[in-house]
Amino acid sequence: MKEEDVITLIKDMAPSFSKGVKLSIGDDGSVVEIKKGMELVTVLDSMTLGTHYLPQTTSDSIGHKIFAVNLSDMAAMGAKPKWAHLSLSLPNADHSWIEKFVKGASAIASKHDLVIIGGDTIQGPEMISLSIQGLVKEGKYITRTNAKIGDLVYVTGHLGSAGFGLHLLKLGKNEPSEFIQAFDYPEPRVDEGIFLSNYASSMIDVSDGFHTDLSKLTKASNVGFNVSIDQLPIRKEIFDHFNTDDAISMTLSGGDDYELCFTIPEKMKDGFEQKWNEKFNTRLSHIGIITESSSGYKYNGNDYMIENKNFEHF
Amino acid sequence: MKEEDVITLIKDMAPSFSKGVKLSIGDDGSVVEIKKGMELVTVLDSMTLGTHYLPQTTSDSIGHKIFAVNLSDMAAMGAKPKWAHLSLSLPNADHSWIEKFVKGASAIASKHDLVIIGGDTIQGPEMISLSIQGLVKEGKYITRTNAKIGDLVYVTGHLGSAGFGLHLLKLGKNEPSEFIQAFDYPEPRVDEGIFLSNYASSMIDVSDGFHTDLSKLTKASNVGFNVSIDQLPIRKEIFDHFNTDDAISMTLSGGDDYELCFTIPEKMKDGFEQKWNEKFNTRLSHIGIITESSSGYKYNGNDYMIENKNFEHF
Repeated sequence: MKEEDVITLIKDMAPSFSKGVKLSIGDDGSVVEIKKGMELVTVLDSMTLGTHYLPQTTSDSIGHKIFAVNLSDMAAMGAKPKWAHLSLSLPNADHSWIEKFVKGASAIASKHDLVIIGGDTIQGPEMISLSIQGLVKEGKYITRTNAKIGDLVYVTGHLGSAGFGLHLLKLGKNEPSEFIQAFDYPEPRVDEGIFLSNYASSMIDVSDGFHTDLSKLTKASNVGFNVSIDQLPIRKEIFDHFNTDDAISMTLSGGDDYELCFTIPEKMKDGFEQKWNEKFNTRLSHIGIITESSSGYKYNGNDYMIENKNFEHF
Repeated sequence: MKEEDVITLIKDMAPSFSKGVKLSIGDDGSVVEIKKGMELVTVLDSMTLGTHYLPQTTSDSIGHKIFAVNLSDMAAMGAKPKWAHLSLSLPNADHSWIEKFVKGASAIASKHDLVIIGGDTIQGPEMISLSIQGLVKEGKYITRTNAKIGDLVYVTGHLGSAGFGLHLLKLGKNEPSEFIQAFDYPEPRVDEGIFLSNYASSMIDVSDGFHTDLSKLTKASNVGFNVSIDQLPIRKEIFDHFNTDDAISMTLSGGDDYELCFTIPEKMKDGFEQKWNEKFNTRLSHIGIITESSSGYKYNGNDYMIENKNFEHF
């Protein structure tokens, strides 16, 4: 079964809605009403050796990354992260490994005013699960389901940098450090996500690869997209390293970017971009438009067919 | 490192308190203030093959058990479970396995009006994490830290039945079914936990073995206990199967009971027991008393030294 089918099966078979549940299975997080004017957003993501990081990945990076991955989901909901619960499964509890893990986790948690208030530790295969709870003003959370035809498609930061970092690590290289850093210490766009809750019509975080994630968003919204590859934020080193098609493939399907991809109603464009530039240094790229149904890419003004290479997946 | 030391390390190194956090790392669940008069209780527990269930355990039972384990933690906080997030890691996603898992999970979730509203699925070693969120009236949650000298110690249901079930399963036996059922399909004491939030001075759920869990409670409360083995709720089949010392050892250190162990101020005894009997058929046993510091057991009126056998742990 594919992940999507497993989720559908759970959604179909299990009780998944009750009074006060605003958003259930199938988005970056869930939303429940907790008091007048305020909603509770919860995300839960797990990571394991082999699927999400390499044997040589340090536990400092693993500690950082499990928080980054979950904070990125929280950002994609437009919510303010508040409380974290950690479940740590390890085959043997090595003091130095755990200390570095907690160091990496604490640094990013502190940076975002997030406190770790519970969880459990068990002996088992190496596996880390984290749940983060956050708050959002009533009705202000952003889902994947509300992109409208004509909305503009944006993305934060750069795409493909983490995928290129992983590619380099697998070749035994440790530089350029910027790409290694992008893979080992991604920076979730938490403040940007909260800001976007006032503007975006739909949002998702880019974790499985840009093409996959934008397709999830447009499928959930029952629309299509037209994206211009020329406008995608791709660092030049990726084009230096690969031929053009491979560089584009790396950018569209390399995972672990933890950038935000979102849609903005066309009429809000100017005001939105101006406010963004006043508030953030984070790169903002307007890369395409929401269409009625069919999806596709343009490159140098021509249609560009993407190859389904499954580039650089574990 | 022992589990306890890992938890202490996380507690010491990581940010774990902020405004509105009422109870953080170190109890059955966490508590945060969410609105006037209401608090949010969260638990997170993981289970894996080998540590928590056997190779022959059906996925229906695994689905039941991951909910039972977390509901039992919620019960030990005295809170009403509301929302669940599930993280499922599997090496290969077999449709029939997953369908039975969801069936087992849904049945117990529905029974307790719990909805599954989020989570994730990943490819990795077999590991299931679940987080449950619940609500409790302000100040009504029950911790491990408030047992007072002279308080009476109680336990629900029977002790050692799940441990005996595991013992039978390991011998290749499937009966008496009552004990197999106790291991494969434990029944968390959710309604009893909510009721107890009006009476208990401290509470813990019995998951790691009665002796270990009561010791955790008394250590957290800075007190001791005196428990009468004659008063412990032990099914007669356990005494039929083992010699007396081994039967007692199975009862005190066999895990997976998912019963509630709690303390009641002496002056509330009669009123409490009467209300309990009006409301529940669940067996209630008054088994001992909280002491100033030293802990111990009595059997037939004499001191009874327990052997640390690590009976039947995986």
